[in-house]
Amino acid sequence: MIGIKSIASYVPVSGLDNYAQGAKFAKDEEFILGKIGSAFLPRMDAGQETSDLCVEAVNALFANNPQLDRQAIDVLIVVTQNGDEEGLPHTSAIVQDKLGLSTGVAAFDISLGCSGYVYGLYAIKGFMEATGLKNGLLVTADPYSKIVDPEDRNTTMLFGDAATATWMGEDATWQLGKAKFGTDGSGAPHLKVSDGVFFMNGRQVFNFALLKVPAHLRELLDDSGLNSEDIDAFCIHQGSAAIVDAVARRFEGEPEKFIKDMVETGNTVSSSIPLLLEKHMLDSSWKRVAISGFGVGLSWGSAIIHRP
Amino acid sequence: MIGIKSIASYVPVSGLDNYAQGAKFAKDEEFILGKIGSAFLPRMDAGQETSDLCVEAVNALFANNPQLDRQAIDVLIVVTQNGDEEGLPHTSAIVQDKLGLSTGVAAFDISLGCSGYVYGLYAIKGFMEATGLKNGLLVTADPYSKIVDPEDRNTTMLFGDAATATWMGEDATWQLGKAKFGTDGSGAPHLKVSDGVFFMNGRQVFNFALLKVPAHLRELLDDSGLNSEDIDAFCIHQGSAAIVDAVARRFEGEPEKFIKDMVETGNTVSSSIPLLLEKHMLDSSWKRVAISGFGVGLSWGSAIIHRP
Repeated sequence: MIGIKSIASYVPVSGLDNYAQGAKFAKDEEFILGKIGSAFLPRMDAGQETSDLCVEAVNALFANNPQLDRQAIDVLIVVTQNGDEEGLPHTSAIVQDKLGLSTGVAAFDISLGCSGYVYGLYAIKGFMEATGLKNGLLVTADPYSKIVDPEDRNTTMLFGDAATATWMGEDATWQLGKAKFGTDGSGAPHLKVSDGVFFMNGRQVFNFALLKVPAHLRELLDDSGLNSEDIDAFCIHQGSAAIVDAVARRFEGEPEKFIKDMVETGNTVSSSIPLLLEKHMLDSSWKRVAISGFGVGLSWGSAIIHRP
Repeated sequence: MIGIKSIASYVPVSGLDNYAQGAKFAKDEEFILGKIGSAFLPRMDAGQETSDLCVEAVNALFANNPQLDRQAIDVLIVVTQNGDEEGLPHTSAIVQDKLGLSTGVAAFDISLGCSGYVYGLYAIKGFMEATGLKNGLLVTADPYSKIVDPEDRNTTMLFGDAATATWMGEDATWQLGKAKFGTDGSGAPHLKVSDGVFFMNGRQVFNFALLKVPAHLRELLDDSGLNSEDIDAFCIHQGSAAIVDAVARRFEGEPEKFIKDMVETGNTVSSSIPLLLEKHMLDSSWKRVAISGFGVGLSWGSAIIHRP
């Protein structure tokens, strides 16, 4: 059984002071911390491409796991909707070359936004089990700085650039349990790119999250025969502080189990969940964690991960 | 075990007379048929989007398989590098909505070119087996008419628009056997989009195909304990007539088993292999087929599919 062996990340050191951005739009510190949730928004350098963020995250993973030989990597999936250049070729091919991975690696990109890590976990596990491959990298990197208009108050205070790398393989500490997914393309216009610029209807996205995510987590727990007491932590997509708080309240379980940690990162799209897992789960004594990602598409996915 | 239950396709009726295109570039009929391989290149209408091609292919699949209730579809993967609009959101979400599929469907896009169907088969099978989902649609649609420059003699005579839909599920007629994959991002510049226009270094791509594909097929057969006598047909990506012929000769097996059928379609990228399987395999008495896709990335994938 393929599971999660390790997670590492790359968060650019440079970035934007979000209080300064807030002041520009007459938003005070209470709004920036309480509603947005992020005092600082990391930004990749002008000379960096999406593939470079991926390479940094994977190199951090290799540094943390010296027993993992890079030539042993046989699968590489990059989750992104803001890949290198114009998306043809796929970013994962460029990452294969920049990392010096074997040319025997199976590589493809998955196009998903904030739900991408949950989908990606099952896509890479399934692909590896269906093909008999042994060491996979699930990489997330979706730098919204490429598409966010700095004059758009609905988006410029929200998003941060980051990348994560998850090592998937046998004898893993964390196994994947039940998962549920959903898609509603009728909501596609609420989050989209037009002429290179990202548009978000914040109210619609907030309502979608509040309507879908607590009920989806509840169904997932029911399907798994679990109660919220059986879950040590809920690591959901960090869309904004307001969304995490609202979902936690609406879930009617134990809201304090919903991890909120985005002060120094912002909304990092498909990287938000693995950033939480890396920081809060890997060294924990937790036994079972619920994850949920939701956003662009509209798309959502929730899953249980647990120690075997 | 999830396998291939049915395949359908959509090929636009309108398109380009490739002899007329050839005349423009001083290429005679022998070149067009013998080297390029396509007398006609289907083109989607100005009013169509990539998602519309997907919808047509899936509706053809539903028409061929009245026992398949569209509300039973729980997974949808679209393989494309030329999705709707600007790729955010993913095309599969738009297809979910246009088809009226359940919002409980798990949907994502895979970004791959000519190797995409081989990867996609194992990605959807694996995802379904890892999540317990039962009825999947693997859709390919990569309309290069969006990116090909009609004045570029290296590309405008090659590509045709098309889409295919493969129903994946239990109790399937065709099962997936061994597969092998490869990626070499150092060749990314040989096939890429810049400023919205596709560029191909034809000689490099031809050499890559000739160097990689016959040897990859040979390794796949060796790993599977099979000889070319055990394979009823080789359905490889229809890059051009010259590439199919050269790979068949270099393979040193039985070149007549390599299917070549692209006169009315052109190179349809990730749709080329499923178009062959639909037309030549579904109603055949074949027991075992080898498939191989190769192109953008550079990326390649080969697999055995067989009756159980």
